Amino acid sequence: MSAVSTTRAAFSSTPSTGVRSETVRSANLAIILRELHFHGPASRSELVARTGLTRSAIGALVGELVKADLVSEQRAASDGSPGRPSPVAAPVVERNVTLAVDVAVDSLAVAAVGLGGVVLHAERVDRPRERVAVDATIDDIVAMVRRVEAALDPGCRIIGIGVGVVGLVNRTDNSVSIAPNLGWHDVAFGARLQHALGSRADVLVSNDADLAALAEVRRGVAAGIRDVLYVWGEVGVGGGLVSRGEPITGAAGFAGEIGHVPVNPDGRPCRCGSVGCWETEVGEGALLERSGRSPEGGRDAVDALLADADAGVPSALDALAVQARWLGIGIAGLINVMNPSMVVLGGLLGRVHPYVSDQVTAEIERRALESSRRGVVVVPSALGGDAPLMGAAELAFERLLADPLGTLRKVSTSR
Amino acid sequence: MSAVSTTRAAFSSTPSTGVRSETVRSANLAIILRELHFHGPASRSELVARTGLTRSAIGALVGELVKADLVSEQRAASDGSPGRPSPVAAPVVERNVTLAVDVAVDSLAVAAVGLGGVVLHAERVDRPRERVAVDATIDDIVAMVRRVEAALDPGCRIIGIGVGVVGLVNRTDNSVSIAPNLGWHDVAFGARLQHALGSRADVLVSNDADLAALAEVRRGVAAGIRDVLYVWGEVGVGGGLVSRGEPITGAAGFAGEIGHVPVNPDGRPCRCGSVGCWETEVGEGALLERSGRSPEGGRDAVDALLADADAGVPSALDALAVQARWLGIGIAGLINVMNPSMVVLGGLLGRVHPYVSDQVTAEIERRALESSRRGVVVVPSALGGDAPLMGAAELAFERLLADPLGTLRKVSTSR
Repeated sequence: MSAVSTTRAAFSSTPSTGVRSETVRSANLAIILRELHFHGPASRSELVARTGLTRSAIGALVGELVKADLVSEQRAASDGSPGRPSPVAAPVVERNVTLAVDVAVDSLAVAAVGLGGVVLHAERVDRPRERVAVDATIDDIVAMVRRVEAALDPGCRIIGIGVGVVGLVNRTDNSVSIAPNLGWHDVAFGARLQHALGSRADVLVSNDADLAALAEVRRGVAAGIRDVLYVWGEVGVGGGLVSRGEPITGAAGFAGEIGHVPVNPDGRPCRCGSVGCWETEVGEGALLERSGRSPEGGRDAVDALLADADAGVPSALDALAVQARWLGIGIAGLINVMNPSMVVLGGLLGRVHPYVSDQVTAEIERRALESSRRGVVVVPSALGGDAPLMGAAELAFERLLADPLGTLRKVSTSR
Repeated sequence: MSAVSTTRAAFSSTPSTGVRSETVRSANLAIILRELHFHGPASRSELVARTGLTRSAIGALVGELVKADLVSEQRAASDGSPGRPSPVAAPVVERNVTLAVDVAVDSLAVAAVGLGGVVLHAERVDRPRERVAVDATIDDIVAMVRRVEAALDPGCRIIGIGVGVVGLVNRTDNSVSIAPNLGWHDVAFGARLQHALGSRADVLVSNDADLAALAEVRRGVAAGIRDVLYVWGEVGVGGGLVSRGEPITGAAGFAGEIGHVPVNPDGRPCRCGSVGCWETEVGEGALLERSGRSPEGGRDAVDALLADADAGVPSALDALAVQARWLGIGIAGLINVMNPSMVVLGGLLGRVHPYVSDQVTAEIERRALESSRRGVVVVPSALGGDAPLMGAAELAFERLLADPLGTLRKVSTSR
């Protein structure tokens, strides 16, 4: 793999900034905090082994994190080996909290998640289609956040607020460019929510499928996998692309709109204005319609369809077979483009996975290049429908994990 | 853009290695050498401004590179401003050389390229289809390399040997998995060429389209652009994907096979075994066939087709119009997936660009999401048919640019 990592180090011709010695300390603090956030409590010896830093460096760096109330240290029980047991460092969960928000079509969810990824409180409420306007959405989120905050440790600090929205989000200014299923267009959602919450913590907004991929790569079925194609399908189909462990965002954060790859030039019109987009063949509406149901039937209709499939009803099985074929065609193309080692199906597509898996695999074998598909596995999401919410929490932790002390200076006690 | 770069720093949950102070010096040597390689000679003051390092650090680091014969320093002529003029550092071109090889279907090319990207010697020879077997290819390359080497400075060191092949290359072991147009399958090409050359310098092999993209991003029309979709089309269609200034390689280096995205379920059979792949609609064969020519006509037939188009011959214009429509459909889908800020057309597709540009743009406007295509430009390659060769040279420089002194220790005087 050395060739690959070498390529990466030197590929770009854009100027790099030189490394100053004072930035090394900050980078190493971040490395230790990420280690504890992602992998849980660790002894100093384990941290030495995992980071390659010396024991004395680990001691000093952990000391700084303890002083900042990000990490606590406890003497471990002896494991029987000679010598003094190595103290165990753990993230201070309840005092370092992010708020996560998921704006879906049919529901809203808010969670408080502590350092280490521990869910402290969470609620999700269904909402009727009349409540999806921007103002109503913000009012509802504020009310839910207030309820969740009331249950938190009074001394905790809110590190950040992460929001997933079912739409195209401009990551550079946290605005929603377009969310067809909500009827939103060019909404400064991050700024408006931040104002309504009156919070000093930054509100960061991202696409729900991107966040589901983030959660799945950090804490789900794709943990530790470096090249991942995440396919999130409900009413629409979106994707999260991960290359070498990092998200592909594109120039303005819009990458991953895999639902709008043209797969059928003679297909149906798409809500995006084009024709024959992948989501017109594999989205919820197409699946329901093919089974003889209303394409607007929603979750209840999907439940009924899957129950029919379990009972062997031909119309349900046929609809799933067509769905499987188009799923396989689209995934095969994306395997050729991305050469992932794992494809994760989330949302509705995660639910149908057991029904379509064999046919999807057959279609991939027919259509993806042998080299590109060698070793690839197609699996359902491990985090289910809460994946975007969990990803929103991770998004809100990102600045802290990149620069622990610098970020704390900004947020202080922000409630 | 801070949100985006923060995302990147913290996205992955895989353990990072701590930064040791001794690696800082090595990283800073690499930063200065890359600056000179990509942007040419620079005064110490310019290096201070571009890298953010202090003047005394720059002085010491440049001194080390001079001692290693990678950089030379000359006193600059006074620019009239008060004080001593800042010395100018320049790459030592003729003594630090890479060999670049391009294995195309109809030709072979070899070049010697000095540090700074200066082409010292180059030759390309056409070859009949009977010479494309692996053994004949290696024999021909060795003979060409010997001629090129004979013209080099006797004291130069060969830093590395980069090879582009029109096929799928496994970057982890420099083997060619499959090259349909050469009839190669699972060939340990890097290792065999290294043995035949008897060189101490490493032979690194990559896909020709990936290398064309590398060259275009470093020294061509996409220099400085961070999110690029490079579409290389000749007989087949391949791609180079660049996200945030870095190549997307995929799990084994096979990413970018954009020619094999299914775009037409009722389309023609593809050489890959699938049906309706993008390259069956936009490759050279389809273009020639639609104009009433043999799909095997090659470059001469393409020249005749474009001459007909210039003369307004309807069959040629019609063939190009169909080509334009399919080009636009495929590019629109990839814009939705990748959200690039630039699309570069290379090879045959670069040649047809002036004929198809308006229709491609119209198709993109019809089919790509407004947010994702906002600001994107579609341009022809600046480096033309030699782009893969120039990329092969850059590939061969990569280890040196990532770790200058460590790499020199390995190659020494390798001839």
